[in-house]
Amino acid sequence: MNSSSLIAPLIRRATFFPLLTTTTSPLKRQFHYTYPAMTEKLKPAARVSGNRQDVWSIINSAAAASPIQPIINMGQGFFGYNPPKFILDAAKNSLDRVECNQYSPTKGRPRLLKALASAYSPHWGRPLNPETEITVTTGANEGMLSAFMAFIEPGDEVIVFEPFFDQYISNIQMPGGKIVYVPMHPPEEGKNKTLSAGEWKIDFDQLRKAITPRTKMLVLNTPHNPVGKVYSKEELQKIAELCLEHKIIILSDEVYDRLYYVPFTRIATLSPEVEKITLTVGSAGKNFYATGWRVGWLIGPPELIQYVSAAHTRICYSSVSPLQEACAIGFEQADQENFWQETINDMAAKMSKFNAIWDELGIPYSQPEGGYFVMANFNKVEMPKDYPFPEHVKNRARDFKLAWFLIQELGVAAIPPSEFYTDENAYIVEDYLRFAVCKPDEVLEDAKERLRGLKKYLRED
Amino acid sequence: MNSSSLIAPLIRRATFFPLLTTTTSPLKRQFHYTYPAMTEKLKPAARVSGNRQDVWSIINSAAAASPIQPIINMGQGFFGYNPPKFILDAAKNSLDRVECNQYSPTKGRPRLLKALASAYSPHWGRPLNPETEITVTTGANEGMLSAFMAFIEPGDEVIVFEPFFDQYISNIQMPGGKIVYVPMHPPEEGKNKTLSAGEWKIDFDQLRKAITPRTKMLVLNTPHNPVGKVYSKEELQKIAELCLEHKIIILSDEVYDRLYYVPFTRIATLSPEVEKITLTVGSAGKNFYATGWRVGWLIGPPELIQYVSAAHTRICYSSVSPLQEACAIGFEQADQENFWQETINDMAAKMSKFNAIWDELGIPYSQPEGGYFVMANFNKVEMPKDYPFPEHVKNRARDFKLAWFLIQELGVAAIPPSEFYTDENAYIVEDYLRFAVCKPDEVLEDAKERLRGLKKYLRED
Ligand SMILES: Cc1ncc(COP(=O)(O)O)c(C=O)c1O
Ligand SMILES: Cc1ncc(COP(=O)(O)O)c(C=O)c1O
Repeated sequence: MNSSSLIAPLIRRATFFPLLTTTTSPLKRQFHYTYPAMTEKLKPAARVSGNRQDVWSIINSAAAASPIQPIINMGQGFFGYNPPKFILDAAKNSLDRVECNQYSPTKGRPRLLKALASAYSPHWGRPLNPETEITVTTGANEGMLSAFMAFIEPGDEVIVFEPFFDQYISNIQMPGGKIVYVPMHPPEEGKNKTLSAGEWKIDFDQLRKAITPRTKMLVLNTPHNPVGKVYSKEELQKIAELCLEHKIIILSDEVYDRLYYVPFTRIATLSPEVEKITLTVGSAGKNFYATGWRVGWLIGPPELIQYVSAAHTRICYSSVSPLQEACAIGFEQADQENFWQETINDMAAKMSKFNAIWDELGIPYSQPEGGYFVMANFNKVEMPKDYPFPEHVKNRARDFKLAWFLIQELGVAAIPPSEFYTDENAYIVEDYLRFAVCKPDEVLEDAKERLRGLKKYLRED
Repeated sequence: MNSSSLIAPLIRRATFFPLLTTTTSPLKRQFHYTYPAMTEKLKPAARVSGNRQDVWSIINSAAAASPIQPIINMGQGFFGYNPPKFILDAAKNSLDRVECNQYSPTKGRPRLLKALASAYSPHWGRPLNPETEITVTTGANEGMLSAFMAFIEPGDEVIVFEPFFDQYISNIQMPGGKIVYVPMHPPEEGKNKTLSAGEWKIDFDQLRKAITPRTKMLVLNTPHNPVGKVYSKEELQKIAELCLEHKIIILSDEVYDRLYYVPFTRIATLSPEVEKITLTVGSAGKNFYATGWRVGWLIGPPELIQYVSAAHTRICYSSVSPLQEACAIGFEQADQENFWQETINDMAAKMSKFNAIWDELGIPYSQPEGGYFVMANFNKVEMPKDYPFPEHVKNRARDFKLAWFLIQELGVAAIPPSEFYTDENAYIVEDYLRFAVCKPDEVLEDAKERLRGLKKYLRED
């Protein structure tokens, strides 16, 4: 039997059908019902069909269009260097073991669960149960999606602080959640003065007003991307009290938990009551300089973790097995290798090395308390009035223009943070750009050299 | 500030609250509104809160309860041996490269996309575009979820043949899809005679009746898990014609595409028209004996692939980077290593080695045309009338009892396939058990030795 003989006329009808919709003949409308146009029937779901260009593709297209090549990419937060040797060796050895190349248990390889329990129990101040209080996920990202899938029913509300990690938004929308935004505000004087990133603040009245009977979860991120803030214990206590009062699940995104330059409090550890409503998210990608490994985890009470784990099973089935084993060994050996302390020392050194350029130029920035991003305030940078921005940049906030300009004129890529605010609040960060310093020292030096080119665009105060 | 002073009374109230719901005092009802019980507010979404025990946990608990230890596990479909050396070496080398340890592009590493395009273009009969016609996912599993997320709106219908790969169900339900089941029927004489797995058939009238104006997708699996059927070209043409007529997207799960023992047709390659509506799913885990690596992909027209890719980005962001690179090298070198032919030879040899036990016992089975599973028909096996099955097995179809019995009495684990049918159709496979033969030869021999213990339970005809 030849199928295409039967098939071709249908395709043709389908293809031409859209023309018919302009008529109003009932006959044709009936025809429409019987043979919906191919493009109509094959159309994507709303959740994937948005078409505003995202920041990553704008920055990539800017980079490709720049006369300066190659661009120094301080935009995306991936490491410009490798995980330490003891972890790479562990990965290579795991690849020789049959069971490490096959499906991991859906909750994670037992050795990793045990290593995570040992690594985090001292922070929690009690022994964590590796079987019931931890679940491994495909990066922190799929871990957060699993948490939303586990608890959000259509119409449930989730409070998200702006600026947010952009994946939160689609991850909350996937199970039908409604996002309620609460902006973080930079310090007013941030335009003129370098201040601690801790000066970015939530307005607690705004937060209180955002809570409704349908509020199911609140997403926290500390140390914070992109701001570099580490929430103080007092701030966390206020947030926790509100969440306890209204029985809101706290999803605490702590992927930068090994990168803090001021005291760091984990919200789950404030009290046993807070622990009961908190899911803490971690990332081996961030901890071990291996963002491409896609190993993450959630820690929380068994009553919550079991459902995260059930959601994860339905999403990915299980996570990458040999690299889980490598991460287990990473956690087992990190202390004896003094790795966690070195991590902080190294990144803090990169931070001050790089930020020296802002001091030199007189461009203020938010002094990071954690993480590997720094937000510089370009209020003093004046771009030529008639600078030719492309259409898709022209209609975005000033930080998009600044990012475009920096790539074209200086060959340095940074991220405009208004992408991580709602349109309504984009103005809050329109003078800022985010730079990732998790790059080799030579790259940081080259970037600084290029950034010296900003001098001629600086407004004199 | 001490938060727990504020918090404790609320927790206590919440904990005790359920007691109050038995009263009808309006005052107390109002109180309820203000302070919903903690357990109520923290409750999971419906999509994860089902509590029927799944087949995997039943089989695991059976294995743990068996007096025979260790159990020979022929249940789950993971390999009992390693990927070939050239692929493991590729993985180890990739771990030494900085860019291979960091985030992959969301659509997949360019080298893997290119390798996939080269590997599949000959089957498609034209050059596939690696940038627009292929997208890499976190195993086939998350790839299929991405496809459903990309196209299913709440209420859209998806046709699934029974027996199904169990993850399809939750993956379709996640975006709100409705599953419409169409059973495959084993040959009537399968009770008494070993016949080709190709004799399991779809009733095309049933299929036609299952189609409605809301049918958005149809899921096909060939070579088939668990049946071992490879759909014939004629069957595929009939399915394709129906899908073209009704503009239904075909999601063809071809994860066992390198394991066929009869001619294998890929539905996408039937005609350019069919290609336009088909997404083909592949799995490096199955192709390279590395189910724990979590690398899969979809191939299809750009109009469909772009949305799958958008969904994947929202689910996992990107997939495991160093192992993608290893898979790229795997595809590049597979032909020169004669790997695909060896794969078929090896698995076909395992199949006949293992299935000899059924011939010896006079137990009929469906002779697999592809994949690494075999379905044996235990109609002739008579279990003692008063055999003590646990509660959660007692109320399932006979195949669950057979599986339990086999584990307890002989120490061999197999999977009861009625788990992969709806309750209504479970009877169709109540005499069958599924065995995975992707195990070392010694394991197959040990399993056969144990299965000889079945002799005394065989009914004489
Ligand atoms: C705040 C935040 N959360 C989560 C993630 C995702 O982590 P992973 O790579 O483990 O998925 C990132 C990555 O940039 C991040 O910045
Ligand atoms: C029919 C079928 N589809 C998909 C999968 C999942 O493949 P992966 O491990 O690549 O996610 C399996 C695994 O058993 C399967 O049998």
